[in-house]
Amino acid sequence: MFVVHLYCGNIIYTPACGAVAANEHGIVAVEDGRVKGVFDRIPSAYEGAPVTDYGDKIIIPGFCDIHLHAGQLPNMGIGYDCELIDWIGKYAYQVEQSMNALGFAHRCYAKLISDLWLNGITRSVVLGTYYRQTNDLLFQMFMKSGLSAYIGKSVCDRSPTGVADETTENAKQDLLMLADTYKDQKGLVRHILSPTYVPGCTPEIMEFIGHLAQEYDLPVTSHLCENRTEVQEVHRLHPEAPDYASVYREYGLLGQKTTIMAHCIHTTGHEAELLRDCGVYVAHCPHSNLNLSSGVMPLRKYLNMGIRVGLGSDISAGHTLNMMSTMVAAIQGSKMRWMINPQEESVTTREALYLATKGGGSVFGKVGSFEEGYEFDALVIDDGNLYDFTDRTLWERVERFIFRGDDRNIVARYVSGSEVARPQL
Amino acid sequence: MFVVHLYCGNIIYTPACGAVAANEHGIVAVEDGRVKGVFDRIPSAYEGAPVTDYGDKIIIPGFCDIHLHAGQLPNMGIGYDCELIDWIGKYAYQVEQSMNALGFAHRCYAKLISDLWLNGITRSVVLGTYYRQTNDLLFQMFMKSGLSAYIGKSVCDRSPTGVADETTENAKQDLLMLADTYKDQKGLVRHILSPTYVPGCTPEIMEFIGHLAQEYDLPVTSHLCENRTEVQEVHRLHPEAPDYASVYREYGLLGQKTTIMAHCIHTTGHEAELLRDCGVYVAHCPHSNLNLSSGVMPLRKYLNMGIRVGLGSDISAGHTLNMMSTMVAAIQGSKMRWMINPQEESVTTREALYLATKGGGSVFGKVGSFEEGYEFDALVIDDGNLYDFTDRTLWERVERFIFRGDDRNIVARYVSGSEVARPQL
Repeated sequence: MFVVHLYCGNIIYTPACGAVAANEHGIVAVEDGRVKGVFDRIPSAYEGAPVTDYGDKIIIPGFCDIHLHAGQLPNMGIGYDCELIDWIGKYAYQVEQSMNALGFAHRCYAKLISDLWLNGITRSVVLGTYYRQTNDLLFQMFMKSGLSAYIGKSVCDRSPTGVADETTENAKQDLLMLADTYKDQKGLVRHILSPTYVPGCTPEIMEFIGHLAQEYDLPVTSHLCENRTEVQEVHRLHPEAPDYASVYREYGLLGQKTTIMAHCIHTTGHEAELLRDCGVYVAHCPHSNLNLSSGVMPLRKYLNMGIRVGLGSDISAGHTLNMMSTMVAAIQGSKMRWMINPQEESVTTREALYLATKGGGSVFGKVGSFEEGYEFDALVIDDGNLYDFTDRTLWERVERFIFRGDDRNIVARYVSGSEVARPQL
Repeated sequence: MFVVHLYCGNIIYTPACGAVAANEHGIVAVEDGRVKGVFDRIPSAYEGAPVTDYGDKIIIPGFCDIHLHAGQLPNMGIGYDCELIDWIGKYAYQVEQSMNALGFAHRCYAKLISDLWLNGITRSVVLGTYYRQTNDLLFQMFMKSGLSAYIGKSVCDRSPTGVADETTENAKQDLLMLADTYKDQKGLVRHILSPTYVPGCTPEIMEFIGHLAQEYDLPVTSHLCENRTEVQEVHRLHPEAPDYASVYREYGLLGQKTTIMAHCIHTTGHEAELLRDCGVYVAHCPHSNLNLSSGVMPLRKYLNMGIRVGLGSDISAGHTLNMMSTMVAAIQGSKMRWMINPQEESVTTREALYLATKGGGSVFGKVGSFEEGYEFDALVIDDGNLYDFTDRTLWERVERFIFRGDDRNIVARYVSGSEVARPQL
């Protein structure tokens, strides 16, 4: 009886940022959902083990989208002539409120999960809504889907405009209830604490969330330095803090537990050092940041500093769950920074593939690579329709897929060793 | 007998840059391939005329791609870790040479034309290769396709690296032969003169082309100020000229006839004024310019100055023929410029739609709009799969299509009043 399963195809992955490991017509051996090794030929120890042969197709790690707003799905592609603050006021709040209706939320979440699946997003960090029932629904639906997600209730108990979305007391109760309900949930779907952003959270709720993270051993995600007006608002609200990141740090929300901070465009030198020293994951959301004129994150600077970075769609300030498009936007944005400052070398396509897989995957543990011990999250890529009448190396085929591919090229998805069928929710 | 045909659907077009005209459940009346008018209800004069009813679908003008290299199709999505000059050396020349084989060129051109059709590019400005037979083939294939194109032979009789691709004499003969062969071709497919760029053309051939343009009444297209190294090279080669654009002007290649100049990133104030004063069309190729780290064109500045601008895919330095993606890149690039210089207001989605239709369409005459007298080039958009559980205005549906749509949403294409089926070449 073999517990090992073998997958054959053109195997490619990025063990480090900028490095590519490739086995043309190679074999990944998987046992108990984890990679045992990648080989050029079937090792004698595994002869006779069951084989799934993907022929000349390409097998890459699954994509990890480490920042998206489930409740904003309906706004994808709408209203980008606005800047962030206007856009939130004009589009985001309205849809968020509709999400209080379970039927509406169910339809949206079913579409979201189906679209994640379609786009090969095997893992994601998902911000929910302010509403208890809707968040419960989101957990339940992800658990049925076979995809992996860290899910958090949005918290917003103060508002710069004077209209808070929820009371501090309600927020506390909801957070506690979620923490209790999902405290034993250590599988593919887990709970993450997600205060919206400093201007949207009272010191009381931030302190509460910091304690909750410790007590329940929970990761944390939020937004940092997305927009210049937002940064000014933090200075106004927290004159006692040296900077925005330090407010999170003060309340136990920056690196005390696994932390993902989205955007991080307008950070100071001190904040960047904090991100590095606290081991924070930066969710780089290039489409979102361009769509809402927020800025272009200093990606090369962060990579050079050794800051951990993954990619986020940030739907629906981002307009697409197509991770290849997000990779291209990250590359193009970094090229733009290089043009302004030639010391900031642009990122390569290899590096972008790392960010989309192992970079963000590390949030979830050993995820995003085919090194030994990694969970087997994989996509099978059929690039047949991208032919160009020219013999291409395996890496050129991957480049071409990244720049020109879409969901039609993804023909199978695996999460932690299991193939995931299109979710029927 | 009615010579008028009526098309019903949600009609939307951009009569001016930034303006949108819309008729929900409206009617376009078309006679002899040209728009007679757009109406909310069938006018009594047209009662009984044949109707094609597209129901709740959206009807927009066809897309115009005013800069692409037919011979570079195989390189789409390949090698963008290089800058322009390196990329040309490493990727472009090799494929260009393969195009000398007719069989290879036929396969590539069949795919190109099919992909243009798929992406709703009803009109394009197409640069061919250096090779006589291959250029003839390109003309013949476009003429069969039902799509419209201006097609030019690439000319490169000097090379900064010392390796010229062709002799001046051969280039002259080929240009003359094409001019003679297609001189009566005044329909959808026409001849355009296309010297590659100043560093690639001797003064002798530039002068020859300038005269040919006058003698045969031909439009001209080339590249201008794409890359900083290229601009320096022009200064080195033409110390007598005040700037790059003035070299073209001197040889009769800038505005003496209809002229399209691609890129125009690193222009001086004087060059921008020349572009305006000579009525030159700028082909803005945002993906290409980002992919090869060339820069971000000052789109707002040009629009404010009244310079004519259209969009180009510039395959294969650009990676896609998806015009919506090109529009998004133009918008995002202009937002990036706004972030650096708040006086350069970013372009809106409406303006991007104008650039992709009437902006570039004007190269071809009355093309790219549904105003009276315009050729009926149209796309029928089925945005059913982009539903978001929310009532959307017609304009929001168009925005959503631009940011999230792809070829699957384009269900019919018309060129000059005729529906075009997928070309079988």
